[in-house]
Amino acid sequence: MKDMTDIPAMMTEIGERARAASRTLAIAPTGARSASLHAAADRIDAQTDAIVAANTLDMEAGTAKGLSSAMLDRLRLDPDRIRGIASALRAVAEQSDPVGEILAAWSMPSGIDIERVRTPIGVVGVIYESRPNVTADAGALCLRSGNAVILRGGSESFHSSRAIHECLVAGLATAGLPQDAIQLVPTRDRAAVTEMLGMTEFIDVIVPRGGKGLVGAVQRDARVPVFAHLEGIVHIYVDRAADPQKALDVVLNSKTRRTGICGAAECLLIHRDVAETLGADLVRALQAAGVEVRGDPALQQIENVRPAEDDDWGREYLDSIIAARIVPDLDAAMDHIGRHGSNHTDCILTEDADAAARFFEEVDSAIVLHNASTQFADGGEFGMGAEIGIATGRLHARGPVGAEQLTSFKYRVRGNGSVRA
Amino acid sequence: MKDMTDIPAMMTEIGERARAASRTLAIAPTGARSASLHAAADRIDAQTDAIVAANTLDMEAGTAKGLSSAMLDRLRLDPDRIRGIASALRAVAEQSDPVGEILAAWSMPSGIDIERVRTPIGVVGVIYESRPNVTADAGALCLRSGNAVILRGGSESFHSSRAIHECLVAGLATAGLPQDAIQLVPTRDRAAVTEMLGMTEFIDVIVPRGGKGLVGAVQRDARVPVFAHLEGIVHIYVDRAADPQKALDVVLNSKTRRTGICGAAECLLIHRDVAETLGADLVRALQAAGVEVRGDPALQQIENVRPAEDDDWGREYLDSIIAARIVPDLDAAMDHIGRHGSNHTDCILTEDADAAARFFEEVDSAIVLHNASTQFADGGEFGMGAEIGIATGRLHARGPVGAEQLTSFKYRVRGNGSVRA
Repeated sequence: MKDMTDIPAMMTEIGERARAASRTLAIAPTGARSASLHAAADRIDAQTDAIVAANTLDMEAGTAKGLSSAMLDRLRLDPDRIRGIASALRAVAEQSDPVGEILAAWSMPSGIDIERVRTPIGVVGVIYESRPNVTADAGALCLRSGNAVILRGGSESFHSSRAIHECLVAGLATAGLPQDAIQLVPTRDRAAVTEMLGMTEFIDVIVPRGGKGLVGAVQRDARVPVFAHLEGIVHIYVDRAADPQKALDVVLNSKTRRTGICGAAECLLIHRDVAETLGADLVRALQAAGVEVRGDPALQQIENVRPAEDDDWGREYLDSIIAARIVPDLDAAMDHIGRHGSNHTDCILTEDADAAARFFEEVDSAIVLHNASTQFADGGEFGMGAEIGIATGRLHARGPVGAEQLTSFKYRVRGNGSVRA
Repeated sequence: MKDMTDIPAMMTEIGERARAASRTLAIAPTGARSASLHAAADRIDAQTDAIVAANTLDMEAGTAKGLSSAMLDRLRLDPDRIRGIASALRAVAEQSDPVGEILAAWSMPSGIDIERVRTPIGVVGVIYESRPNVTADAGALCLRSGNAVILRGGSESFHSSRAIHECLVAGLATAGLPQDAIQLVPTRDRAAVTEMLGMTEFIDVIVPRGGKGLVGAVQRDARVPVFAHLEGIVHIYVDRAADPQKALDVVLNSKTRRTGICGAAECLLIHRDVAETLGADLVRALQAAGVEVRGDPALQQIENVRPAEDDDWGREYLDSIIAARIVPDLDAAMDHIGRHGSNHTDCILTEDADAAARFFEEVDSAIVLHNASTQFADGGEFGMGAEIGIATGRLHARGPVGAEQLTSFKYRVRGNGSVRA
């Protein structure tokens, strides 16, 4: 590795190694990639103490730096969480291999047979914040899909990520795969991120995982294509034809099952015809479950509803808070979602099939739901296995990004001396 | 339309109109979009004289400017070519509608039903050179796929494109669709292109169609995602196990059927074991068909083979010229393609199934062929209907880009008050 003070040279070397490794990976057998992940999982189990020790360094630095308790909790690793990381690796190892899958096959009257077959993308760059488990999850998904990966973790999780990364590399070595297939940027210098964003020659796509600040900065500055993972500004529209019991079940689950995930509901839109009946019941049920409701003037008539400010619309709380507003009709609800949503996940509660159909058609989000909890917005719940996140863009990947979404394809054409007329 | 000297303001207005039109289009029925294309085709037939007159202005300016005869030929419209444009519009109108197609549907044990359904991308920007027919083709494909489009044609075809665009807009009006669904940038000022490349808010993807200079500049400067259409540096590798008759048929067809299309072969790689037999036959057959062969030193032993210079490797001639080189084995052939190819289309001629399998696996091109002419690299020949070009990137679209490749998708999830455990 070059002098770490020369970040551009260092990153170019990492990029060249990743590109070279990606060529080997693209033709490596499924079995080797699976074996590598199993070996990495075993290594993580065996290295639990060392990983905890590395994490302790990060936790001490984070505490000294005054990180919030939520951030410290995301950062923290204990033997139980480390077992979870290892078992996630094994789960990815057991997932079916997308590479080489024949997506379609057909013959043309001209005499040629055509196949569309999945291929790796090449080199993926993952830029994430302080969750150390992303090191393992993202590394594993990229390997499962035949891609080399350059990981740039948050500086707060520097030691933890390095300890986990060492296990992934040990797994690659055991399986006879190039160790450069999973590289971790070995510096906390932000200049390394700037370099990554411009490395069009060596990185095919960048996946930013983290808050609005990180993702926005990556989108703004990247020359490399980005699978944007914007925050989940998740809306639930309670139609006038909503079933009250379903509405209560779905709204409570959507907001309270886990408040810190991107599929958690952040805003409730209530049709005015049911505002004083079902709407009021929903607000009180949320409050009874410990949720702070920030409502528009009409909803402020309900006890303990706090006034919503302008910036409560379109806000991702990731906490026990929900914004709530009364709307005159479905169009107004969809208009609100269009203005304030993040094209992530939005839900309609109704027994009116026409209203549901219009919502499905017109709301431009990766995931639209009808009478189902927004917390289903998750690759695992979709049956896709592990995911790297929920993409909110409209190109290539959209919705849960698992191994399949990290692939490309090519056309294989077979003839028998066939020529074009 | 704002003052044309204020290009940024003008382009912003065009962008806002396109975005608004895309929302209407996304929910417009299939029938309206088809009817619009039929009406546009009728209008083009009816306006043949006016289109020829507009084209005459372009041809006169092009001649005065000293355009090459090849460029003038691409620019020229006559009643026959105009009929071809109209019939291409009708063909796209008859193509099946990708929007709304259910790509997959499945149920989860949690009780939710999931559908993955095709949606438009939104707003497509097409930047192209002087072929006026692209105005119609690109406009039609974007409309077929439910996208609004901003067209920026080459300045040489300014009047011709404007005359064709008027017919497309008339078609939209007839079908009751927003006229801003297909907009043509009304200035030749290059600053308009610069603006387009940065309009991330209003344009979802840019498709550059044209030579290396145009595509390279767009890729370098665009902030908006790009479906790159690089030139076709198309290779044919003649393996030692090639069947001589198939090789003769395929090589001649690949090079000479039409030399000006991106699937035309540009470089022949010949295994050394057959260099003096089949290789020499192929070179002589190409020469007999009027093709200039530029060979490496060994091939220069054959009469009339001109010496290949360094810049003949990786060159797109689009003419009756081919580069030719002897290689020691399959690996060397693939290495040459990796260095000099453009990830577009490459072919192996062999009866050795293992060699073909390795070529299919290891050559990283959108289209790989075995014993079939490279001139099959075409959306029509793949059964995809009209195409906007052959994408050479690995994200979203790859290979022939037709209406389907101009779509995105979303997930529709149905429950019955379903909540996540």
